[in-house]
Amino acid sequence: MATTAHAFVKVYAILRCTLRITETQFVELLRRQSARHARGLSNLSGLRRGIGEDCAVIADTRKKDLLVTTDLFLEGVHFRRGWQEPRSVGHKVLARGLSDIAAMGGTARYAFLSLGLPRKLEPGWMNAFLRGFFELATAEKVILAGGDTGASQSGFVADVILVGEAPRGRSILRSGARPGDEIWVTGRLGLASLGLRTIRAATVRERVRLAKAELLQSFYYPQPRLRIGRFLRERKLASAMIDLSDGLSLDLARLCKESEAGARVFEAQIPRSSQTPLRDALHGGEDLELLFTVPPGRSHALPGSIGGVKLTRVGQIIPSGRPGKKLLLVRGDEEHPLPVLGFQHF
Amino acid sequence: MATTAHAFVKVYAILRCTLRITETQFVELLRRQSARHARGLSNLSGLRRGIGEDCAVIADTRKKDLLVTTDLFLEGVHFRRGWQEPRSVGHKVLARGLSDIAAMGGTARYAFLSLGLPRKLEPGWMNAFLRGFFELATAEKVILAGGDTGASQSGFVADVILVGEAPRGRSILRSGARPGDEIWVTGRLGLASLGLRTIRAATVRERVRLAKAELLQSFYYPQPRLRIGRFLRERKLASAMIDLSDGLSLDLARLCKESEAGARVFEAQIPRSSQTPLRDALHGGEDLELLFTVPPGRSHALPGSIGGVKLTRVGQIIPSGRPGKKLLLVRGDEEHPLPVLGFQHF
Repeated sequence: MATTAHAFVKVYAILRCTLRITETQFVELLRRQSARHARGLSNLSGLRRGIGEDCAVIADTRKKDLLVTTDLFLEGVHFRRGWQEPRSVGHKVLARGLSDIAAMGGTARYAFLSLGLPRKLEPGWMNAFLRGFFELATAEKVILAGGDTGASQSGFVADVILVGEAPRGRSILRSGARPGDEIWVTGRLGLASLGLRTIRAATVRERVRLAKAELLQSFYYPQPRLRIGRFLRERKLASAMIDLSDGLSLDLARLCKESEAGARVFEAQIPRSSQTPLRDALHGGEDLELLFTVPPGRSHALPGSIGGVKLTRVGQIIPSGRPGKKLLLVRGDEEHPLPVLGFQHF
Repeated sequence: MATTAHAFVKVYAILRCTLRITETQFVELLRRQSARHARGLSNLSGLRRGIGEDCAVIADTRKKDLLVTTDLFLEGVHFRRGWQEPRSVGHKVLARGLSDIAAMGGTARYAFLSLGLPRKLEPGWMNAFLRGFFELATAEKVILAGGDTGASQSGFVADVILVGEAPRGRSILRSGARPGDEIWVTGRLGLASLGLRTIRAATVRERVRLAKAELLQSFYYPQPRLRIGRFLRERKLASAMIDLSDGLSLDLARLCKESEAGARVFEAQIPRSSQTPLRDALHGGEDLELLFTVPPGRSHALPGSIGGVKLTRVGQIIPSGRPGKKLLLVRGDEEHPLPVLGFQHF
């Protein structure tokens, strides 16, 4: 059983065949990697027990709420090994969890990682996966505090758990939007979806070249918007927030459901690159941008961009109308229902 | 992306085909089930946000350490659908996580569940899985506070995350054993392993009958020893503790490694049923019993049993000797090295 690295212990039967290291070596590897990237972080002293115990022990502090999120990442569903560098897979696994913390206006503290490893995993693949994971963890000052590992009889499985925090009662929820609030988004939408379609259509040879292409970076290395989420919380600028993991239409519908409200989106204002079709910007998943609502009269306090990431007003919260009339897309002078199309994994 | 039930949202493509309910219905089902079993629990007020947000928000309290553990459960590795009732799978997924909390002397508070669901899952299977999960959750006063769900292109995947607590600095670690401490275990060892071998050898028809057999209950429904773990912590009886998830020899080796000590185990004292071969008692996994060490002179304060579960002294912590000489098995007048054989998943 297991959390933490003891945790990463049952992997040894597989590793013997693939990575050619023993369970002990693998646990030690993780321990060292975790210790190295955690060195000097202020939250390290709060991690009373990390890798090496049944449970991670996190010191309780006053005036804080803990944020806990889990995200499952499955081969053949969330990624394909032939389509994506392992470093990108490691990055995205963590980025998805961090994006949930960002959407609450929180600060990420500890990560836990459960891995199911297929028998035919190449030695270098796992190393590159961990490199992608730890690079982002270090950048965001997140400590890997535990996890579990088993053999997978099919594809690669990763479940990431993030524990973060926010001042007591100050997390930005989905349920706080009110009619009249403005709807804003960060960055440009649809790039990850466009990237996925580009890779899907490419030949094996083209994919190698595409791995370096500028267009694909939003798909391979989406950036969770933690800094922006915290900025909005600290300045009390957002009444509600959600991260765009499954597409604008679906995630906006979720925010509206929790807020018991509707929304009007202005098609012309949706930020997208000249290459990005509208359908990707409206319905494409995995951008990891933030969608947030701003109470009337507060948007003057919003900067045009934060850390180089543009903020764009794209719509308005409206009263909840009849079913099917809640989400509207404004195109020129006309209003149409905005279809809610979820992100489809490959 | 997602924690919490928003969380359980991407499941809808599969559920349309199998359970024949929509994503919204599935989320509402989980929300209701979670609310119903959580009603009246004292920790419900501490769960400021559960299902329906990107992250679960847990109120921080003073004087507590949080315990977080994750356990991965994979079809074809940790269980086979043909060998095991789905209710038992749901029970075991949670029991494995709870057992880690028990091994720290902690109290379990919140569970998070990440599920990868294969396309060919029968409608009734998932319901029975959740029944097994929630029955145990209710019994142990654990609230399901979130999770994630995706489609799995192969077998069923479950990752359970438990968040528990213990008084600050009072968790029972693996590292606290000292030479001279007595080694004790709860219950009887090897029953789960014997059960697994029995099922493996049975025909399909026999398995239906075996599902009800007394012998198999330790395999199908192992009981995490939370009450015993807390008792030992409150009375300060245990210097170190670990749960027996991968077998006495392997888990004792882990405890000794963390404590930088060795151990002498008395073969004749290992508690096992008359049917259980010694090798199952020594090396069989998944019993979820506790192994703990008691400082000299403290064992007089140990009761013979707690809640009907016997406590048995099986050995002694010794100084760490040369490599390969650390773990000894005493048989009559002779001492042999105790081989460390891990639990092998099927």
